[in-house]
Amino acid sequence: MKIGIYGYGNLGKGVEYAAAQNSDVEIAGIFTKRDPACVKSAGAPVYPAADVLKYKDDIDVMIICGGSATDLPVMSPELAKNFNIIDSFDTHARIPEHFANVDKAASESGHLGLISCGWDPGLFSLNRLYASAVLPDGADYTFWGTGVSQGHSDAVRRIPGVADARQYTVPVDAALEKVRSGETPELSTREKHTRVCYVVAEEGADKALIEKTIKEMPNYFSDYDTTVHFITAEELARDHSGLPHGGFVFRTGRTGLEGGHKHVIEYRLALDSNPEFTASVLIAYARAVGRMYARGRRGCVTVFDVAPADLSPLSPEELRAHKL
Amino acid sequence: MKIGIYGYGNLGKGVEYAAAQNSDVEIAGIFTKRDPACVKSAGAPVYPAADVLKYKDDIDVMIICGGSATDLPVMSPELAKNFNIIDSFDTHARIPEHFANVDKAASESGHLGLISCGWDPGLFSLNRLYASAVLPDGADYTFWGTGVSQGHSDAVRRIPGVADARQYTVPVDAALEKVRSGETPELSTREKHTRVCYVVAEEGADKALIEKTIKEMPNYFSDYDTTVHFITAEELARDHSGLPHGGFVFRTGRTGLEGGHKHVIEYRLALDSNPEFTASVLIAYARAVGRMYARGRRGCVTVFDVAPADLSPLSPEELRAHKL
Repeated sequence: MKIGIYGYGNLGKGVEYAAAQNSDVEIAGIFTKRDPACVKSAGAPVYPAADVLKYKDDIDVMIICGGSATDLPVMSPELAKNFNIIDSFDTHARIPEHFANVDKAASESGHLGLISCGWDPGLFSLNRLYASAVLPDGADYTFWGTGVSQGHSDAVRRIPGVADARQYTVPVDAALEKVRSGETPELSTREKHTRVCYVVAEEGADKALIEKTIKEMPNYFSDYDTTVHFITAEELARDHSGLPHGGFVFRTGRTGLEGGHKHVIEYRLALDSNPEFTASVLIAYARAVGRMYARGRRGCVTVFDVAPADLSPLSPEELRAHKL
Repeated sequence: MKIGIYGYGNLGKGVEYAAAQNSDVEIAGIFTKRDPACVKSAGAPVYPAADVLKYKDDIDVMIICGGSATDLPVMSPELAKNFNIIDSFDTHARIPEHFANVDKAASESGHLGLISCGWDPGLFSLNRLYASAVLPDGADYTFWGTGVSQGHSDAVRRIPGVADARQYTVPVDAALEKVRSGETPELSTREKHTRVCYVVAEEGADKALIEKTIKEMPNYFSDYDTTVHFITAEELARDHSGLPHGGFVFRTGRTGLEGGHKHVIEYRLALDSNPEFTASVLIAYARAVGRMYARGRRGCVTVFDVAPADLSPLSPEELRAHKL
């Protein structure tokens, strides 16, 4: 399978690493808006994004590695006019609209697109679906973290006097334990997660004011118990340069006579690198997109529409013998 | 969707309960080898198993609730000659052979069969497949328990002097923690699980001999650290009448430059009732079998071949809006 990587930031580099772990995947080209001469890949050719159409016959699936806020809503429908595509669009509320746009473009051009692939949306979504289909009389819980939230880190960085910052989302142990026990508690936003910020203040900045501004920031922090630590730029670089993330999806439900039996389904991810793991999911689903396209599937799909066997390099016989 | 329940033991009763939780599912008939007059259902009609062909036009999917040792290898191919079927065949080593038999019968008769559905094989298998497709450079671990193993309980009951017994399979915490930390240890059988037996001895039986016989039993106990507790029949009935089970599927793997980033995927089930939960999985997959048959799929499939969306009563639009 020949893939293209459209966008070469953290996620695009993760796709490059993940492709190297899959012997049936070859990178036909990396497309960047920067000057290709200044972009160093591990070996795959680097082309200007503007030239992408020249390579349309060389690429089975284009993996679009852009941001959800402004890149993907434009890039994915546009590229679906000429390529099979896959993206990691993760603005949950706008998924129906994004799906419709990609579906229209891909259907008209005779291609296949798969949107919102990664771990949430993605593997977490699959677990929400499987678990709720199996336990209809139950409740879903999703917790995130411990991990770096880029959006929240950016929000802190925009505060006057802040030179740099890193924000961690942390699930509350007591809430996890309550759900894990099979209870179906109603949990408020504050009861589910706390937020921890590591902030490098500019020289002479009013730290008390920065802390107050963070803790009272609506949408981002005001509904949470937030802890703020002021550290040096060196400490930030040394201790907080990674992009770990993860979380939990639970479903607890009841079956049997008068719902007498409780069941707990728990799915947990603990990821050293959010972008590299997301990229690994994208590669597996790119394989499925290639296969489904070859069988005649067109338009837009999501992880919900993909039979698991299509993700694996193993044959159906090998899967039944060794994974079932 | 109209289902039939073929076999009315613990699993068949579980299917009956699970059907009541799904408003799109109706039980067209329960088929039993016992005298139907002596079988009390919660409301669905009960028929002799021998009359099953009379109802072939009334049933969309037949859920076969038999044992894997001798029932399903015969029942599933036989019923697939006249019905869409689903079973929970769980003898892992014989899955390829069972698949071939059901595939032949269903293909020839123009039906669809789904075999080996439940939690292991079933939901655990899905997690092994998804996780290995996403993290090709990694290792799989499956742990079972804490839960009742019927096969091991039966093996203890066959020992002379044993009136009744219950055997629990227990995963070893230290092994779980080692895997959960992201290591990829080589674990022996003994390091992964312990076995705990509750035994009711017959009056005058030689308890020391019973304990020795259990602990030295090849295949079942000799490779494990086994604990034997002698209790009264009343204690067994009071404290060990349930059929809890569950377990863990892990994959730990590495990504990135020189595999520098570790990832842990953990899936856990904690089930008060093994047969009721298995039945709940069967109902969700029976829905998928009905839909796939309606779209023209024939022959035999497994959980690996089913797109997750086919399991849910929600529409694709609802799934994308609320579960993705």
